[in-house]
Amino acid sequence: MCLSLVQVQQAANCFNGTNLRVRIVDKKAGPVETGRADGLKSISIEILDTFGIGDAIQNECQRCEEIVLWDPDKNGVITRTLTIPDRVEELMKPREVLLDQGRIEAVMCENLEKHGSVQVSWDMQPVGLQVDIDLKDDPEAYPITIILENNRTGTQETIRAKYVVGCDGARSWLRKYLNIGFAGDLTDSTWGVLNMVPKTNFPDIRKVFVVHSTRGTVMGVPRESKMVRFYISMDGGNRHTALDAKSVTAESIVDAARAILAPYTLEVGRILWWSAYCVGQRVADEFSRHDRIFLAGDAVHTHSPKAGQGMNTSIQDACNIGWKLRYCLEQKSHRSLLSTYQNERRPIAQALINFDKEYLEFFARTDTTHDEFLTAYLTAQKFTTGIGIQYPASLIVRNKGPQSTSHPLAVKLAQGMRLPDFQMVNQSDGVPIRAYHRFTCDGRFRILVFAGNISQEPSLSRLARLGKWFTTQPLQTSGMEVVTIHSSKRADVELMDLHPVFRPWDDEDGWNYWTVYADDESYHDGHGHVYERCGINKDEGCLVVLRPDGYISVICALEEASELVEFFDELKSKPKSMTGVSGEVEIRASL
Amino acid sequence: MCLSLVQVQQAANCFNGTNLRVRIVDKKAGPVETGRADGLKSISIEILDTFGIGDAIQNECQRCEEIVLWDPDKNGVITRTLTIPDRVEELMKPREVLLDQGRIEAVMCENLEKHGSVQVSWDMQPVGLQVDIDLKDDPEAYPITIILENNRTGTQETIRAKYVVGCDGARSWLRKYLNIGFAGDLTDSTWGVLNMVPKTNFPDIRKVFVVHSTRGTVMGVPRESKMVRFYISMDGGNRHTALDAKSVTAESIVDAARAILAPYTLEVGRILWWSAYCVGQRVADEFSRHDRIFLAGDAVHTHSPKAGQGMNTSIQDACNIGWKLRYCLEQKSHRSLLSTYQNERRPIAQALINFDKEYLEFFARTDTTHDEFLTAYLTAQKFTTGIGIQYPASLIVRNKGPQSTSHPLAVKLAQGMRLPDFQMVNQSDGVPIRAYHRFTCDGRFRILVFAGNISQEPSLSRLARLGKWFTTQPLQTSGMEVVTIHSSKRADVELMDLHPVFRPWDDEDGWNYWTVYADDESYHDGHGHVYERCGINKDEGCLVVLRPDGYISVICALEEASELVEFFDELKSKPKSMTGVSGEVEIRASL
Repeated sequence: MCLSLVQVQQAANCFNGTNLRVRIVDKKAGPVETGRADGLKSISIEILDTFGIGDAIQNECQRCEEIVLWDPDKNGVITRTLTIPDRVEELMKPREVLLDQGRIEAVMCENLEKHGSVQVSWDMQPVGLQVDIDLKDDPEAYPITIILENNRTGTQETIRAKYVVGCDGARSWLRKYLNIGFAGDLTDSTWGVLNMVPKTNFPDIRKVFVVHSTRGTVMGVPRESKMVRFYISMDGGNRHTALDAKSVTAESIVDAARAILAPYTLEVGRILWWSAYCVGQRVADEFSRHDRIFLAGDAVHTHSPKAGQGMNTSIQDACNIGWKLRYCLEQKSHRSLLSTYQNERRPIAQALINFDKEYLEFFARTDTTHDEFLTAYLTAQKFTTGIGIQYPASLIVRNKGPQSTSHPLAVKLAQGMRLPDFQMVNQSDGVPIRAYHRFTCDGRFRILVFAGNISQEPSLSRLARLGKWFTTQPLQTSGMEVVTIHSSKRADVELMDLHPVFRPWDDEDGWNYWTVYADDESYHDGHGHVYERCGINKDEGCLVVLRPDGYISVICALEEASELVEFFDELKSKPKSMTGVSGEVEIRASL
Repeated sequence: MCLSLVQVQQAANCFNGTNLRVRIVDKKAGPVETGRADGLKSISIEILDTFGIGDAIQNECQRCEEIVLWDPDKNGVITRTLTIPDRVEELMKPREVLLDQGRIEAVMCENLEKHGSVQVSWDMQPVGLQVDIDLKDDPEAYPITIILENNRTGTQETIRAKYVVGCDGARSWLRKYLNIGFAGDLTDSTWGVLNMVPKTNFPDIRKVFVVHSTRGTVMGVPRESKMVRFYISMDGGNRHTALDAKSVTAESIVDAARAILAPYTLEVGRILWWSAYCVGQRVADEFSRHDRIFLAGDAVHTHSPKAGQGMNTSIQDACNIGWKLRYCLEQKSHRSLLSTYQNERRPIAQALINFDKEYLEFFARTDTTHDEFLTAYLTAQKFTTGIGIQYPASLIVRNKGPQSTSHPLAVKLAQGMRLPDFQMVNQSDGVPIRAYHRFTCDGRFRILVFAGNISQEPSLSRLARLGKWFTTQPLQTSGMEVVTIHSSKRADVELMDLHPVFRPWDDEDGWNYWTVYADDESYHDGHGHVYERCGINKDEGCLVVLRPDGYISVICALEEASELVEFFDELKSKPKSMTGVSGEVEIRASL
């Protein structure tokens, strides 16, 4: 069961295709919203791709392609001083696309409806909750009793649940009800944010622009439907003026922007949404309780919207707990899998706050050099795109040695890091596909077999031996899928020559033609250079266990396949050695 | 008003955003269908792109990437003899994608609903029709009276219409009612067509395959959702056996395919649809009557489905008459515009039949050499992708001299030919976009200004002069749009330096940031090489008038802009010189 404000659709989408009983409870009357968050980082698009909705959202988005910086010249007149591509070299794709949060939610909602696996209750909110502590460790129990109330009719309903996820926003009812601390600072900087169709002769209005002037700072981001989002420091050139956000109006935001952009003109075409805020930077003390109740998104971290991190981090939170709950319930894995949620996501939230403090400070300065700007931009990028994230060792990040960002068998990958979204070519039909379009969020781990150049010996025999070994193992195919990516020319490989375990037979559908891929040139979309991007030697190859959320659990040699058995065995039965690595969740008997 | 069977949604989509009253009448209960047509050529995807639904359809499609040919070896055992990419070099994109016709119709229907410009009446069919001949030339009149009957309730409704388009299929009620001849041949070759999920060890089952064996010929096309479409000559190895299509069963089709594919196995997973037919090859004598009633699609041409031309040609028919009706009604152009429908589309249908005869004959042969196969494939490709189409000179294809497939100012373009779907980069935000995503079917012509290298003189001054000239002309902006594509580095051009006519001001929305594009490298998607693909000299440039359906009306020099005025003037007032060029529609007083 999920309590909804914003990103709950995300968590719920992890359950598409399941037979589990999942329910969304949302106090809103429906998904229609406007304003608020709008920026989707490339990592979020990848996550949406795994739900099959990335393309639909991208088709409506405004892409960001360029960032420009303006500074006052010696006469105090703003001048364009820097233009850089808004590009993440490592990802080979745009850093960010923009679309109204309402549209994003709507597409997520439509996807839930299409799959029909999740029940959605609008106009509904929780008014009471109890956990039967004696049952909390019993995987078959429903220890949570929750009372819901329809906020239109007043009708109450009592339901029992195995798990509850609260995505109920910064003023989270669930967090308060659990009496979880939510400490942090309210910065003394007041910001205005406004979506409008502007009438202006400012030449960079359709780029991401940061304009430092003697009258303050404005940042702009181009949006879909002719809109531009403006972020404006409402304190003018004076930093840390304690200005009451309540005194800000749409007109005062536009006036401030106009003053900063002068001598360029700025008039309002239409204002579509606006808000003013003092930035509160907070992280909740706990992200979960008893590994039965989980909090995600704004309920456990708040920060400035300017780095565009709120929605993106929340999407990652929701996906993280979503797949773990599904896997735990469907595959009956040990419940300690769920404690990795807090272990993985709370440090990210804390790092986000630290980043946000520096970023706000940096943004407000008018004396930054271009080198400083570029350094800050690239640092922010690593953080905001998720390529800098590496989860610590745990039940699902197998790392026996010290943590490293490079594995000897895949020098550009590491356990706990994210798989890059490379393109590979289907062996059977030659159609190119990107990793996150293929590795959909369907509750399964993937065993990626980087088999090397199997058009030649000894790689072909080695793969055959691995195939034979797989057939002798009790690895359950329901909880994982084996996908082979070879480095040969596609034309030099015949799918039917490979061991059947790599193209598994189905009595209804025959052979599976969607499990073997070539790292080869495609006819129409170039070469994915998978081995190169992952730093995998084409002779040696390797095995990679990929989590349902795209992070890497295990990297090992083809000859070390027994590692896989150990990994999945430990996931089934709580391992002795691993539980303590990142600390168990502290349990308070507050309920 | 449109009478619907299949492609009427296409015609209706031409009216999205209009204030005209448009109605679809369809005897079906709804858009749900399965089987039948499935192949969308790249030209059809381009057309769907202009309606904003190409991406949605492509996201669901199976792409065709490779064609393989199998022939008997000296022992009569089938062997793979040729593998070629399924690629159209000129278009730089896949030749074909596949999706169930029902899904294609559904997406079109959803698009109509989204725009809400067209009323759709299901379960409705015409039972009577009259044309008031005296009013047929009056542009303000409603000379058509049509009686509709609800086929569930029997309720009748009489409505008056300016125009009627019949897309009511091979057994067209409208064609028969108008007593229009539909002559042609029924070939003596019987074919089975079947969609199934096959269980087989035939290694090329996910490619386009043509297998010639001593036991006959089978062609296969990979489809979405694990399906494969099979086309099988049911006459076995013997051509021209008069086999009754009614005697064919799904089992006999599978048996025939199994015999041809032996020694490979073939078993049925699921059969999703099948049909058997003798190919009828017919073209209607008239495609329109009084330039008031029009017929499109199967109503005026039938042929074999194998070359995948039925749906594609019909989509082009529908788009051709759709935009002309809209333009004629919205811009009050002379009605003789409408006679170009028959003049342009009937020769295409006739050529399609001729092609189809040769193709069927070729397909049935077992003695083709690979060179012959490649030649036939490439010939077919030019035809099937539309790149070989050139419409004759007319009111909307301005060609004073003899017809040529190359214009001196754009040596890879010509009047009457189609603009290639190149990529260009938006000057204001750096976002790359393809031509047919930008040049949407919104009822407007486009004046494409290939301005050359405007970062330097004399090109910049020349563009400024053109801009000034535009402001002195009575060219109506409502019926056309000016789009500039320059060949400079995007960084070397400032949008605001260009004459305002090229980035027109709107009192609501300010400057238009979506009318100036660079033929330049994009940050993430490469270079479109627009000038190179069009054969336009970067110093000289040119003007191109683009029809709403992507075909070229005029090519002239920037200094010859008066040609544009002449062109649009003639479209307003019926020209004396042009009407006779391709012959007026013959009018029969049969009603």
